Parts: sequence; structure tokens; C-alpha cells
Amino acid sequence: MANDPLSLTFAALADPTRREILARLAEGEATVNALAEPFDMSLQAISKHLKVLERAGLITRGRDAQWRPCRLEAAPLEEVDQWVDRYRDRWEERFGRLDRELHRIQNSTEGEKNHE
Amino acid sequence: MANDPLSLTFAALADPTRREILARLAEGEATVNALAEPFDMSLQAISKHLKVLERAGLITRGRDAQWRPCRLEAAPLEEVDQWVDRYRDRWEERFGRLDRELHRIQNSTEGEKNHE
Repeated sequence: MANDPLSLTFAALADPTRREILARLAEGEATVNALAEPFDMSLQAISKHLKVLERAGLITRGRDAQWRPCRLEAAPLEEVDQWVDRYRDRWEERFGRLDRELHRIQNSTEGEKNHE
Repeated sequence: MANDPLSLTFAALADPTRREILARLAEGEATVNALAEPFDMSLQAISKHLKVLERAGLITRGRDAQWRPCRLEAAPLEEVDQWVDRYRDRWEERFGRLDRELHRIQNSTEGEKNHE
């Protein structure tokens, strides 16, 4: 498995539980226990997910030995945003084509109406 | 490994070779041979990467049995953009803080200059 920073980030995001954990942390810091609550999952399984997120720099953990609250770190997400942004014109172009096609259909329907 | 569409996309992007292949395809369709050229990699290894990209819907392949040119598909990248966009205020907020801190330092430096 690749271990450059962007690959680590993408790999960490390739799991719905880890994405839900990030969504929860976007609302504020949380302990492992609080994070585990909505999931039908052992604390151990959640801890494993947190380690993957931590390794990618997507979360940091407090120093308090007992609670170690998790905190979302946005910097790797910004890297993802910058990476994907270079392809923006590709999907906008696709919408442009759909939009023109829709106009064409609408115009031809209008034409038919005028013809009636 | 999770196999929901967004997880498949993130997993496919978690590799620098696959990201380079997408960058190459953003310039236009290409055959496996053309894609393999810049990499010190067997055709078999490249084909494996293409299968991962294809499974995630990031590329499609032509029907021509011999050449089967690969083509970038932007829709999954747009999903990534939409997903990451919900965290935009997190890193913009971070820049806001850095910006305010910079102003504070500049102002205090100005203050010192005026004091001289």
C-alpha cells in the first residue's frame, strides 16, 4: 500500500465508518467512547479506525491519558480538495453538455407546440 | 474492504500510479500501452491498476477488443468534491485564524517601528 501523505488520506477516507467519525468530529471534539456509541462496533474496532485517521493526519488526539479526545484536522482534506479541483472543468463540461442537450430538447418541444 | 461507491473511489485514488494515470487521461483517451510507457511497470501491473479505476467508475474502456482505449469519467471525482466540500469551512476557518495572527504580528511590528 502506498504511504505518501495523499494516498494515506485517500485510504483513510475509503471507509464509511471513518467518514462518519470525521462527520461527528466536525461538530466538536469527542472521546473514543462517545465516538463508538452510534456504531454497533467494539471499542477496539473504533480504536483501529482512529489509528488509520490519525496516521493520515485527519485527526489528532489530546494528551490526557485517560480520555484523549479526538479532534478533526482539516489540512489533509484541503489537500484532497486541491487535488480534485484540477478535474473540476471535466465535470462542469459534462454539465454544460447536459444543459445544452436539455435546451435542445426544450426548444424542439416548443417547436412542436407552435406547430400544433 | 468497504465497497460502497464513494469508498471504492477513495480506495482507487489511494495510489500515486493510479492518480498519474487519471492525470494522463485528463489530456485525452489512451491505450494501456500508451499509459504504461512512462511507468517502470509491466503491462500486467498497469492493467491491474486500470481494473481498480474501472471498478470505481473513474475510467471506462472502449469496445475495440484490441485497443480498448481508456477514458476518464469525472462523475466519481465530483462526488469526492461534494463530500470534501462540507469540510471547507474547517480549513477556511483555519486560514482565518492564521490571517488574523499574521495581522496581529504585523501590527505589533508596526507599533515597534513607530516606537523607534
